[in-house]
Amino acid sequence: RIDGARLWKSLMDLARIGGTPKGGVCRIALTDLDRQGRDLFVQWAREAGCSIRIDAIGNIFARRAGADDSLAPVMTGSHIDTQPTGGKFDGNYGVMAGLEVVRTLNAAGVRTRAPIEVAVWTNEEGSRFVPVMMGSGVFAGAFTLEHALAQRDAQGVSVAEALAAIGYAGQAGAAPAVGAYFEAHIEQGPVLENHERVIGVVQAALGQRWYDVTVQGMEAHAGPTPMELRQDALLAASALVAEVNRIALDRLPHARGTVGSLEVHPNSRNVIPGRVKLSVDLRAPDDAQLLDMDAALRAACARIAAERGLAIGVEQVVYFPPQPFTPHLVEAVRANAADLGYSCMDVVSGAGHDAVYVARVAPAAMVFVPCADGISHNEIEDADPAHLEAGCNVLLRAMLASAGV
Amino acid sequence: RIDGARLWKSLMDLARIGGTPKGGVCRIALTDLDRQGRDLFVQWAREAGCSIRIDAIGNIFARRAGADDSLAPVMTGSHIDTQPTGGKFDGNYGVMAGLEVVRTLNAAGVRTRAPIEVAVWTNEEGSRFVPVMMGSGVFAGAFTLEHALAQRDAQGVSVAEALAAIGYAGQAGAAPAVGAYFEAHIEQGPVLENHERVIGVVQAALGQRWYDVTVQGMEAHAGPTPMELRQDALLAASALVAEVNRIALDRLPHARGTVGSLEVHPNSRNVIPGRVKLSVDLRAPDDAQLLDMDAALRAACARIAAERGLAIGVEQVVYFPPQPFTPHLVEAVRANAADLGYSCMDVVSGAGHDAVYVARVAPAAMVFVPCADGISHNEIEDADPAHLEAGCNVLLRAMLASAGV
Ligand SMILES: NC(=O)NCCC(=O)O
Ligand SMILES: NC(=O)NCCC(=O)O
Repeated sequence: RIDGARLWKSLMDLARIGGTPKGGVCRIALTDLDRQGRDLFVQWAREAGCSIRIDAIGNIFARRAGADDSLAPVMTGSHIDTQPTGGKFDGNYGVMAGLEVVRTLNAAGVRTRAPIEVAVWTNEEGSRFVPVMMGSGVFAGAFTLEHALAQRDAQGVSVAEALAAIGYAGQAGAAPAVGAYFEAHIEQGPVLENHERVIGVVQAALGQRWYDVTVQGMEAHAGPTPMELRQDALLAASALVAEVNRIALDRLPHARGTVGSLEVHPNSRNVIPGRVKLSVDLRAPDDAQLLDMDAALRAACARIAAERGLAIGVEQVVYFPPQPFTPHLVEAVRANAADLGYSCMDVVSGAGHDAVYVARVAPAAMVFVPCADGISHNEIEDADPAHLEAGCNVLLRAMLASAGV
Repeated sequence: RIDGARLWKSLMDLARIGGTPKGGVCRIALTDLDRQGRDLFVQWAREAGCSIRIDAIGNIFARRAGADDSLAPVMTGSHIDTQPTGGKFDGNYGVMAGLEVVRTLNAAGVRTRAPIEVAVWTNEEGSRFVPVMMGSGVFAGAFTLEHALAQRDAQGVSVAEALAAIGYAGQAGAAPAVGAYFEAHIEQGPVLENHERVIGVVQAALGQRWYDVTVQGMEAHAGPTPMELRQDALLAASALVAEVNRIALDRLPHARGTVGSLEVHPNSRNVIPGRVKLSVDLRAPDDAQLLDMDAALRAACARIAAERGLAIGVEQVVYFPPQPFTPHLVEAVRANAADLGYSCMDVVSGAGHDAVYVARVAPAAMVFVPCADGISHNEIEDADPAHLEAGCNVLLRAMLASAGV
């Protein structure tokens, strides 16, 4: 069994890097705070006897040697980048749980047959750079390294430049084989809490399509310009925000539609907005339904543009289909949770995770634990130490079963 | 008659300070570019024999002595601050037209009985600091000097600090009496052009109410958070944008409603927005109607907040009632336009102008000229040199009639 207090202390120590007054964490991908977090992980992993490898997109792999190092490693991990107003657990839990597995094996003097690796994937959150889940996406070949390195943030800094600046641009080369991949994560939604279960056995993750939408109207004076002559880009964008919500509401219970980011130009009180840029995030459990939502979004844009006499451009920037996890690993999670006496239930992940991409190239599964009020992507994100300990015990057992002793 | 080519050259020379690639001007109030524009005006006014006075809110008064300097001056002027994406004519025309009147009187060797003054009012646009029309508002006692100096921009810089930084914090003291005030301005709307008239005889300006609105929802993850459990601040704000438009559409032809500025927090693609701040700008020709729009706005905020289970705060930051101009000066504008053979018509100003506040403490009137396609608060703002010349000739005649020769 793992040491719950040690796991909690690692989480709290890591949370100090980028900690916010409201108790959250702002440690955005490939910033200097991200570097500090990475450096701390690398130090801890070395102290636990691991060797470190960095790949060309900045993913970190900490390896604990196995009895037979020619075997593909059994891997776990997640990410330590956060949302601008993120919490202490999203991603960080999966990485610290992996480290805790290594420390537990060290303390017990257990030698596994296959090596164990703990991965820290680059830019999972996608708030600074799209595509989201960038490091695992490159690892799994979902898009190319060159595509990822060329992406730029809102200030025009590229991923390649940001990686070089923090000293985490590692070696290029083909991704090595993975024997099995497990990722522990907080649920980030209310289902486990509502059902009073400790372990979520994750069956699959929703598919996602993300878009950049630009509404091009005409700037004019808010006073003398008659209402009926306006091409108000914000008025059109507002209609689109309502439509994105409607597209998901029409496809309950599992579809989601969100406009998370919206920028107005020139954003002056007495100027009719001339241009609005906004993001759209659509999710569904079924790929055909997700495509249908794509069509509904495009139709809504075309209708609003025609009604209001302005132009709306739609560019898809992220797409991945719903991803089922590997049945025998999912079963291993369920069986070990039951064996340990934890209440559990099957769940579907509404969020994307690095495991979604890794599942394209290796057997993969996930372990969810509850978070307070189902709240995540918020500084008040919280989790029960006992639940985090339980999830880490399930992770340990499932990894040992895959790696062999 | 004034020299149209000289007037045009002054406008083009001034437009170089803060000129944008699209042919507009970005010379925001109390920035270093504003200082450069002010310095150029002061230099030109001194070269034209004027004395310069700066008051405590940074208004500049350039005075051409009269035969009887004990008489209250006949004043003209406007502003040279611009919108972030502003044009070459809004405000600048009124100041350069005043300078052209002085230069014309100099060239003709005319001595007026009352002195002539050209005013450059501080922060008319209101895009960096509210209240809008700040310099003329302090001059006319619409609000106090202390209130104005304490206002801060989005970066937290106060008006007092910004004035000191550009060296235009002048002498405090009671505003001197003004014999008559005339302001020449582009119309900033389509009415004169649609009616093919050269001079607009401005009867009054719409009243205005501006607000800061804050929608407080709850940040959460865009994936696992069920649609029905969300408190999406942007979804609520979008409903309010539509309502602001509706409030004006229900009160045509003269009411206006605009959301020009909107900021989303944390503005991340996969985070349900937790907070949105937006501006609301309501205008009407009748004070009772404007109050009715205020009530409609507050009711819409309360209804949306209740429907969506979140909080909406409304703070009024600008209010002035509809302002009629002084009948005998309005008549002077009309009579001189007719005398000069220019086509003219009565208009109402949809924009606020410094004349609106000056009209509270002195007889005041305005002269409008058309602008291309009625577009203003846009870098493509344009005007016909012949129209600008015509407006300046009307200004010259009206000022001479008031000042006496
Ligand atoms: N787990 C997580 O927050 N991932 C970010 C990607 C997403 O928005 O689903
Ligand atoms: N003339 C002008 O653009 N004034 C700004 C104040 C307003 O928005 O009416």
